[in-house]
Amino acid sequence: MTLDDCLRLDAQDPLRTLRDQFLLPEGVIYLDGNSLGVLPKAAPARVAEVVAREWGEGLIRSWNTAGWFDLPQRLGDKVARLIGAAPGEVVCTDSTSINLYKVLFAAIAQAKAADAKRRVVLSERSNFPTDLYIAESLCREHGLTLQLIDSEAELPAALTQDVAVLMLTHVNYRTGAMHDMKAVTAAAHAAGALTVWDLAHSAGAVPVALNDSNADFAIGCGYKYLNGGPGAPAFAWVHTRHAGQFMQPLSGWWGHAAPFEFSPHYRPAPGVGRYLCGTQPIVSLAALECGLDTVLAAEAHGGMAALRAKSLALTDAFISLVEERLPGQFQLITPRDHARRGSQVCLALQQQQTPTQAYAIVQALIARGVIGDYRAGDSQMPDILRFGFTPLYLGLADVWHSVEHLVQVMERKEWTQPEFNAKNAVT
Amino acid sequence: MTLDDCLRLDAQDPLRTLRDQFLLPEGVIYLDGNSLGVLPKAAPARVAEVVAREWGEGLIRSWNTAGWFDLPQRLGDKVARLIGAAPGEVVCTDSTSINLYKVLFAAIAQAKAADAKRRVVLSERSNFPTDLYIAESLCREHGLTLQLIDSEAELPAALTQDVAVLMLTHVNYRTGAMHDMKAVTAAAHAAGALTVWDLAHSAGAVPVALNDSNADFAIGCGYKYLNGGPGAPAFAWVHTRHAGQFMQPLSGWWGHAAPFEFSPHYRPAPGVGRYLCGTQPIVSLAALECGLDTVLAAEAHGGMAALRAKSLALTDAFISLVEERLPGQFQLITPRDHARRGSQVCLALQQQQTPTQAYAIVQALIARGVIGDYRAGDSQMPDILRFGFTPLYLGLADVWHSVEHLVQVMERKEWTQPEFNAKNAVT
Repeated sequence: MTLDDCLRLDAQDPLRTLRDQFLLPEGVIYLDGNSLGVLPKAAPARVAEVVAREWGEGLIRSWNTAGWFDLPQRLGDKVARLIGAAPGEVVCTDSTSINLYKVLFAAIAQAKAADAKRRVVLSERSNFPTDLYIAESLCREHGLTLQLIDSEAELPAALTQDVAVLMLTHVNYRTGAMHDMKAVTAAAHAAGALTVWDLAHSAGAVPVALNDSNADFAIGCGYKYLNGGPGAPAFAWVHTRHAGQFMQPLSGWWGHAAPFEFSPHYRPAPGVGRYLCGTQPIVSLAALECGLDTVLAAEAHGGMAALRAKSLALTDAFISLVEERLPGQFQLITPRDHARRGSQVCLALQQQQTPTQAYAIVQALIARGVIGDYRAGDSQMPDILRFGFTPLYLGLADVWHSVEHLVQVMERKEWTQPEFNAKNAVT
Repeated sequence: MTLDDCLRLDAQDPLRTLRDQFLLPEGVIYLDGNSLGVLPKAAPARVAEVVAREWGEGLIRSWNTAGWFDLPQRLGDKVARLIGAAPGEVVCTDSTSINLYKVLFAAIAQAKAADAKRRVVLSERSNFPTDLYIAESLCREHGLTLQLIDSEAELPAALTQDVAVLMLTHVNYRTGAMHDMKAVTAAAHAAGALTVWDLAHSAGAVPVALNDSNADFAIGCGYKYLNGGPGAPAFAWVHTRHAGQFMQPLSGWWGHAAPFEFSPHYRPAPGVGRYLCGTQPIVSLAALECGLDTVLAAEAHGGMAALRAKSLALTDAFISLVEERLPGQFQLITPRDHARRGSQVCLALQQQQTPTQAYAIVQALIARGVIGDYRAGDSQMPDILRFGFTPLYLGLADVWHSVEHLVQVMERKEWTQPEFNAKNAVT
């Protein structure tokens, strides 16, 4: 595939106008929308309006006159359209980690109430660390055991009568490998376990069908593929069959059935409203809505199915070009199988010439304006170069140029030896 | 006191220039800074910069280049100056309710480890409901009892050997009554209990001396007297004597000692950094910093002591004028004693002519541009009209006009019968 091929195909892409929704910096090819989505054109004006008019002029009155009260549910209804959920089933609130704490607590409590002998939360060692940390904490609190499998192949054997909750991330943050949500949920249910799905790398990136998959609980992130801005509020979903019974422990007044009754006793709001805790950051929620609207705009062009087809075309092209132009240098970590691949491609060096070479290559690419990121390995996983492909604002020519830059970095050995700092090395 | 007296005194007020830091709507006298602070002039430009330049241009790189990583601690250091804490002891993050969950969990765990027989969390029935809801939840989880006293006079008798944690709000959200933090903390410690202080109506409103009071844990709100914007992130503080041992259960990756190590096991950051959980809403944090700076600007004019003196002059004047001009109509709920009074005045009708008259009067005042709020009563407390006085942007003439409007509302019986809705009646 030549650059001319890419340009020709991009010109025929029915989704190409979606890119006009964003303000992208000159000279940047952004392959990190899986970490922080780009700025929607609508966001600066909308945020300015919330600050100057709603906060500045409306002041406390804006809770009612500007609809601040309804924001978590109204935005939740927008997220619902992207994850196969129904209106009223999702709220946008707090952070992904905090929402995971809520839903995992609720799932554990419900599973224990049904069968007190089940004492295991099952997950994958390769899950995103914050998920494991939250699960560690809840298992300690509830006297449960967190059992980690090393690959999906171990799942059938691990789904024993001891498992209370199966907690998985739908698309793996490192490898980009995707679970079959429907099949895995069915297997968990057959084993008597509840499911908690983390959609951080799925919502807005791949089609998700929570209700069709018969999932139990889910949470996800607002600032990755949903383009909600740095640290945007996250979301939580619960299947309606649990809506009246689940209880989460962060029982703040915002999840009360009537907050302004100021009753000294907690009475949870009906349904998913009880996932709210305290007052939400309105300015950040307003930016999130602009991000959600950029993804929903694809509904006029085939929606998530069309985005998915383009995403696969982008990742296919990236994989092909890397293999064609840099033969033998990189190992593909992401599954080739479309059904198993998210919207990113991860590479590991076949042979690291220095301990931090993968990190240094990512930094060299960033210096050239090709922004991906690095994720450190451990005894079981190699260091990786991670490239996210967001079909809303990327085309095949971007893929071509990215690989060209990678070729040049490798040919010219442009990597220096920057010091990797595990405290803040976000890229 | 005449309007001329007020204008003359306002002209001599050394703090009067602090008002120039804010964008206040024309025709509004804002007595609800205890619920949502007003817009700092610096905020629109700062927020726009974060959105357009840091997010839009810097993208993922801004975590490092724009200092996003340090925001919770850097803003925490600013809050520390307002609450008698030291740098490194405070973080700005999440919501007040969530931070309370963290610190109360940590306090309970620490108290139980020291003496497992202590099984009571002690608080006041009049505490802000979300505090009681969170305590209810944690007591249920930990097999403790939440014991509520009806007045501070009951405190000495209630501080028994059973009490693990005394959880109080420093300034009561309804009555404006303030505890003597140092004396109460000493009494709690003498009884072997730890203390958790909610500073929602204190930080930026009254002098707070956490370290001098020898308090254990504290949390507070960013969007009231700190002018951080709607739903601004909150803060948490812990005394350094607990810094190495406390554990909170919302153990997300942001509180990990090295988040980008991506270790599967949680290792808490040293000190108060472990109170962080997930990624923070950066745009809302940026607005909060503008708010904090408006309060810190008073440091050049005598700081919290000068703000406190002016606050007492404002509330004294409001009480005097109401009693002089509306004799026998209102009962003063807020303490007259300066040492016991926060920065607000609450009134109850001596006799409510209709069940919702207090609410209706507040609505009539809002229609006139005098924005206070209403808090519903219950079997033990009357309905109240609540007026917050923020010395940063209010003067004695504002007090005079407010009372004049209240006089006119009462004389003209302007109250209609608006329906009170406990789900969203924020004012």
